[in-house]
Amino acid sequence: MPDDILPCDADLIARLSSMLPPAALLTGAAIDPRYQEDRRARFSAPPRLVIRPSSTAELSAALAACNDARQRLVIQGGRTGLSGAHRIQPAEAVLSLERMTGLDAPDPESRTIVAGSGVPLQRVQDAADGANLMFGVDIGSRGTATVGGIIATNAGGNRVIRYGMTRAQVAGLEVVLADGSVLSCMRGLEKDNSGYDLKQLFVGSEGTLGVVTRALLTLHAKPQFETNALLAMPSVEAAMALLQGLRSRLGETLSAFEFMTEDIYHGAASEAGVSDPLTTAGPIYVLAEIQSQQGQEAATDPFMESLSDAIENGLVLDAVIANSMREFLSLWEIRDSCADYVRRQEGVANGDISVPVGRIPDFLDESRRRLLKIDPASRFLTFGHLADGNLHYVFCTTRKEEAVACLMNLVSDFSGSISAEHGIGLDKKHWLPLARSAAEIETMKRLKIALDPNNILNSGRIFDP
Amino acid sequence: MPDDILPCDADLIARLSSMLPPAALLTGAAIDPRYQEDRRARFSAPPRLVIRPSSTAELSAALAACNDARQRLVIQGGRTGLSGAHRIQPAEAVLSLERMTGLDAPDPESRTIVAGSGVPLQRVQDAADGANLMFGVDIGSRGTATVGGIIATNAGGNRVIRYGMTRAQVAGLEVVLADGSVLSCMRGLEKDNSGYDLKQLFVGSEGTLGVVTRALLTLHAKPQFETNALLAMPSVEAAMALLQGLRSRLGETLSAFEFMTEDIYHGAASEAGVSDPLTTAGPIYVLAEIQSQQGQEAATDPFMESLSDAIENGLVLDAVIANSMREFLSLWEIRDSCADYVRRQEGVANGDISVPVGRIPDFLDESRRRLLKIDPASRFLTFGHLADGNLHYVFCTTRKEEAVACLMNLVSDFSGSISAEHGIGLDKKHWLPLARSAAEIETMKRLKIALDPNNILNSGRIFDP
Repeated sequence: MPDDILPCDADLIARLSSMLPPAALLTGAAIDPRYQEDRRARFSAPPRLVIRPSSTAELSAALAACNDARQRLVIQGGRTGLSGAHRIQPAEAVLSLERMTGLDAPDPESRTIVAGSGVPLQRVQDAADGANLMFGVDIGSRGTATVGGIIATNAGGNRVIRYGMTRAQVAGLEVVLADGSVLSCMRGLEKDNSGYDLKQLFVGSEGTLGVVTRALLTLHAKPQFETNALLAMPSVEAAMALLQGLRSRLGETLSAFEFMTEDIYHGAASEAGVSDPLTTAGPIYVLAEIQSQQGQEAATDPFMESLSDAIENGLVLDAVIANSMREFLSLWEIRDSCADYVRRQEGVANGDISVPVGRIPDFLDESRRRLLKIDPASRFLTFGHLADGNLHYVFCTTRKEEAVACLMNLVSDFSGSISAEHGIGLDKKHWLPLARSAAEIETMKRLKIALDPNNILNSGRIFDP
Repeated sequence: MPDDILPCDADLIARLSSMLPPAALLTGAAIDPRYQEDRRARFSAPPRLVIRPSSTAELSAALAACNDARQRLVIQGGRTGLSGAHRIQPAEAVLSLERMTGLDAPDPESRTIVAGSGVPLQRVQDAADGANLMFGVDIGSRGTATVGGIIATNAGGNRVIRYGMTRAQVAGLEVVLADGSVLSCMRGLEKDNSGYDLKQLFVGSEGTLGVVTRALLTLHAKPQFETNALLAMPSVEAAMALLQGLRSRLGETLSAFEFMTEDIYHGAASEAGVSDPLTTAGPIYVLAEIQSQQGQEAATDPFMESLSDAIENGLVLDAVIANSMREFLSLWEIRDSCADYVRRQEGVANGDISVPVGRIPDFLDESRRRLLKIDPASRFLTFGHLADGNLHYVFCTTRKEEAVACLMNLVSDFSGSISAEHGIGLDKKHWLPLARSAAEIETMKRLKIALDPNNILNSGRIFDP
């Protein structure tokens, strides 16, 4: 009987049953197949059992029991991760945060909100919106991705240029360590240098060092006005020049600068059911957004002037500026549909990579040249967050393995990152040495052993112990 | 012969001598007394030896040797720390970063600069300024405090309201661990989720986890215009109301909002040799600064209007707005002289504390009431960074020990921090349990053991092992 279908240790089940309410523990036939869901459609093993605590106390008790029994756990939020960290490995039990869904009202004075780790991102966004505030993290999977998941992966998304990654918006965390001890770092003071800032350890460590149970999230003033524009452009160089121009003219008002190559643009527009709003085609498309605390005119005038100048200078071939909330959302709908369109293509290879912003044009040239050499029929569907140097380097090829290896090595040559915002999980750990030195990986392992000596939390994610 | 004057292990000296150039190793009479300097004027032991590497390779080799010999090291930058982390303990050797002074030219494209950890803060500021950029960290000791020191203590200072603490401005770090291994996290990509963000560990850990050798620092666009205003105000509540008003009207243009009570204001002004520019006195003084990317009028008009309104509403009793660079600097000179004035008083007690911003008026009332009960002759010299909730709670008393204990316990009752920006060092570690739970302190110790198992780096700072 292979290890992956061995029943869970009966003593552990008995201990968990005695400490948890029935809804918090699923075994056998009661386990829904949804825990095996995976956006990359890779094999996810059946879990030995599913623990679904609804409080920090339950979670702490369950973790202590699993730690004593050396039961490995895979931690699951919304299962929207793209590197397989939530994918169940043989002999693992699931620790699902789906019932940690407490959400306080936003505090308008400190501009913060306390959210359970199982709360979907969109609920946080909506709660902030209802208090005339906003949460600065936004990703396409907002309806399903959870607070715990965006923290564990230090999610980036569409507005990093303005608000930073998730890390910049975590003012406090409550975390349970593998042995069940609870770290409450929830005071959220603007300034606090009383010992190590422990919460930083858990942001972006993909559930390997501890389990986030609650977070104190920083909110921002809701923009008084926002609009966006979709632009057809003659080249990546033109997009880079426009980005520089908008940044120096608009400063922090520029809140997104998203990039699509022509095939993905047309594919995503048809996926979204939006007819192309532009009359002139270009090899490159950009979706630029501004968010302002000033009135419509004060915000729009410099944006419009910048775009007019760019059209005059030949940087922009064609532009459409949203004139209504409906148009604003419809332009975002195109961008948000890129991932759905990609998911339906054949032979897709994927790299969530970043390179220093100034080197993007060279990187795109050189990578295309090399990938076409491997497979002259390669089809490029690259899109991403140009202002952050972050490309979702998607392409279709029949020689995937060789092509991705070529891409990742080139990223390394360009001093870039092999995972800009999706994390390493299971799927990218064999590439980690391209991004991090032996000394860095050794240090990660030392931290893992210090906080999870029995290696029960998301074992084998990021690196092998 | 007590341990503190035991000569250093001869084998270690021989090994260090063989690997380091003569300038990098001082022993015996060659050791200058400056290494024993301490701003708090407390006893600093004579060091066993002084290691002064001028490169990461030298520093790495020296650390490996000290680790093998179990030689404890105190790490020194500019020795301007206010919690004693750099103060030499018996049997320690000094690892001074004073020769790690490489400073690259700022990179205008990425808006970053690479600085050695021994570079004084002001050299970074000046280099940024010369490239039409600015570094967002500013503290009174800018001429002496070093890059390594501001990173190890996560320095705050005058413009946290606008640019954040030092952590927010560290894009990359090179760090040497106790065993000599070198971690280079210097790529500085905007987005990089390839494994743990190790550099976060070393910011604010006061030299206990590793030695920072170089940093990639984030710079900002140099403000096109800046000015400041000194205000006499009737109450702390008025200062809080003005702060709220300026924040909502000026947004991020507001770059400092410094607070002084009357005694410290008059003392600092006379210390600075500046005659009081205000004609009406108040119990409270505020120095507000704006920095803008817009022209003088666009920046000044809303600031002037806000202040006029505040005068009309009785929030401000008297105001002077700087009309020249000379006046601008002279107003800052008053604020910067607070620390010098305090240093010359008798019976000074000191708390670098923070509380949630909205609770500052209550905290000031309650603390004054309690401290006057302990010593009715207490004299208050409180000043600080009001917008961050950070008070340098200085007072003069003949019953210092009891009074400080009272203050620290009250801070804890207000969910505040016992060290907002100065760190814990040696001087505040007995207060740490007021700010951090047993589980948090235990976790800090686990990290210390993981990265410095022989406990040679700044041992006994923050917590006892």
